[in-house]
Amino acid sequence: MTSDGRVAVVGGGVIGLSVAWRLSGEYAVTLFDPVPARGASWVAGGMLAPATEAWPGEESALELGEESLRRWPGFAAELRHEASDPGLSTAGTVVAAADRADAEHLEVLAAYLHGAGRHAEIVSGRTLRTMVPGLATSVRRGLSVPGDLAVDTRKLLGSLRAAATRRGCHIVCEEVTEVAADRVVTAAREHTADVVVLAAGARSALLHPQLREAVRPLKGEILRLRARRSSLPPPDVTVRAMVEGRPMYLVPREGGELVLGATQYEAGYDETVTAGGVRDLLERAEQVFPSVVEYELVEAAAALRAASSDTVPLIGRLDDGVYVASGHHRNGLLLAPVTADAVLAQLGGLPVPAHVDAAHPRRYLAGRESA
Amino acid sequence: MTSDGRVAVVGGGVIGLSVAWRLSGEYAVTLFDPVPARGASWVAGGMLAPATEAWPGEESALELGEESLRRWPGFAAELRHEASDPGLSTAGTVVAAADRADAEHLEVLAAYLHGAGRHAEIVSGRTLRTMVPGLATSVRRGLSVPGDLAVDTRKLLGSLRAAATRRGCHIVCEEVTEVAADRVVTAAREHTADVVVLAAGARSALLHPQLREAVRPLKGEILRLRARRSSLPPPDVTVRAMVEGRPMYLVPREGGELVLGATQYEAGYDETVTAGGVRDLLERAEQVFPSVVEYELVEAAAALRAASSDTVPLIGRLDDGVYVASGHHRNGLLLAPVTADAVLAQLGGLPVPAHVDAAHPRRYLAGRESA
Repeated sequence: MTSDGRVAVVGGGVIGLSVAWRLSGEYAVTLFDPVPARGASWVAGGMLAPATEAWPGEESALELGEESLRRWPGFAAELRHEASDPGLSTAGTVVAAADRADAEHLEVLAAYLHGAGRHAEIVSGRTLRTMVPGLATSVRRGLSVPGDLAVDTRKLLGSLRAAATRRGCHIVCEEVTEVAADRVVTAAREHTADVVVLAAGARSALLHPQLREAVRPLKGEILRLRARRSSLPPPDVTVRAMVEGRPMYLVPREGGELVLGATQYEAGYDETVTAGGVRDLLERAEQVFPSVVEYELVEAAAALRAASSDTVPLIGRLDDGVYVASGHHRNGLLLAPVTADAVLAQLGGLPVPAHVDAAHPRRYLAGRESA
Repeated sequence: MTSDGRVAVVGGGVIGLSVAWRLSGEYAVTLFDPVPARGASWVAGGMLAPATEAWPGEESALELGEESLRRWPGFAAELRHEASDPGLSTAGTVVAAADRADAEHLEVLAAYLHGAGRHAEIVSGRTLRTMVPGLATSVRRGLSVPGDLAVDTRKLLGSLRAAATRRGCHIVCEEVTEVAADRVVTAAREHTADVVVLAAGARSALLHPQLREAVRPLKGEILRLRARRSSLPPPDVTVRAMVEGRPMYLVPREGGELVLGATQYEAGYDETVTAGGVRDLLERAEQVFPSVVEYELVEAAAALRAASSDTVPLIGRLDDGVYVASGHHRNGLLLAPVTADAVLAQLGGLPVPAHVDAAHPRRYLAGRESA
């Protein structure tokens, strides 16, 4: 595409905004989202954690995540320079095991990471408690992963939106109902474009027939808490935990805030905050960091992640004039830099690294023309 | 006081609004509240339940409550006529006992109510489950109290506000910082009055020296849930329960809503919704009515009840030109009609019934001039 090409980006979550920001300046970009800078990105812990999300057999996800994490400091510095601080925290991550089965799970993860040459250290409960004052005394074992970071999702979304706008991206607050090779359609208008980038998260599956099987909604709930004067402050580091076999996380934010996440349900396009989900998060968090019960409950929110059936995202050309950047599962924040760079390279006809190529949607297009 | 007297009512919760409504027309009434029709009345289950709140030794509270409950149907009919339906439900109340100790507590209550000639019937868990489909199978015993009712607090507050305004009550959305015999003071104005009625709930204690020892804040948290299409509908009746010795309630509202309450903390003037309070309510509700975990969590809220040290409210003359209507504890909704009628009678120099006289603040004014 020539540099005066018109690009329509569908979706204004972290992926859509990152893509729109990167493309703006090179192309004439219009982004469509009825409520930009919200959605699943708004309801997210903000972990940038390829190592603690890793698992044997999922090498391409680990490599893609690590490549993106390497780009994060530069990505954050550019945003800070062009717009505002996106709230990158480099305090690191620990994983706590609540019982023996959880500890065994950690051993598997630690052995895998060591085998792959990654830095992760099994530590005693006592050491963990010096890193996280207030950690439950029942935690006997943990994993320290100083390289896994976190970002304040809401600061990031605000910064991305401002940066994209400053580079000339035009944001249209309308919902796209139809996508074609040369246009997007909303209730109010038809907007022609040379290229459409589908970055509408779980909704992407409703907008293109080839994504119907590949992308599905995966509901998640989070709670936002705030320490009170009388309570212990939140941890400095991100605390992940296995509690009775289920993952949970506590991500500190500025101002004494702590985000608890996340539930995972296959519930279709339902975005209801359920009583049971809230109770589960509170109960599990208490088992890891008992002081949370004294915290103020500031917000309970639910949103739909875009899960792909093989847990690797879809980044690349889908059809004539239509690209996709979706299916990022629990890793949209982490993968934003590598995704935006990949879409920029692909539109410019430049090669992408092998681990990005593993995310190409052609793997779902068996029996069709290879893209 | 003559009928052209000016009355300033301090506080626009259910008590302040009821008093203002009753007095408007007879007097020139101005009501002060920075956020009228909110506060503890907004964050309340809305039970009108003198019998299920009763306990041996608290006869005057039972009699006062029953007197007010008798006035409720007329009170509601007048509001419906003058403004809008206040949402009185006459479906009745059941009390469920979650374990043996809770069942013993119920036996004491039932024996007391029978002895006092009140209608309350011990029923088996099986009978209770026909009255409340979806009740936990662990409930073995319960009490049916058809005479204890409930009201939709938010409809009621809206109706009271509209009715008072239509009768000419002037509402000033400012916080009163000082009360004297002939005026109230806000940051913006001094408002002269012939009589001041202090109905500011727990804040009343901060506005008059003689209330400092008598009234204190008692924090409560509630949750508002909504049934989803896939979940069991809420009960038709109000369900109270003892769960591990602690009282809780589930009050149905129109539209598939269910209000869960209530925690009780002595926490000063703190109105924070705590993670622990929310978790407690959800856990206890699940033990009584397991389907709640599938419900949508719509709202979590906290407010301060006005507790009096002997659990009987304070209704009457406090000082020259200053009356009090506060200290209603968990029974502000129930006691609104009798309180408003009593203040109207007292200002007109008319006698009040004996059980209202038991609520006179003079019992706290030992060593001072008897009012």
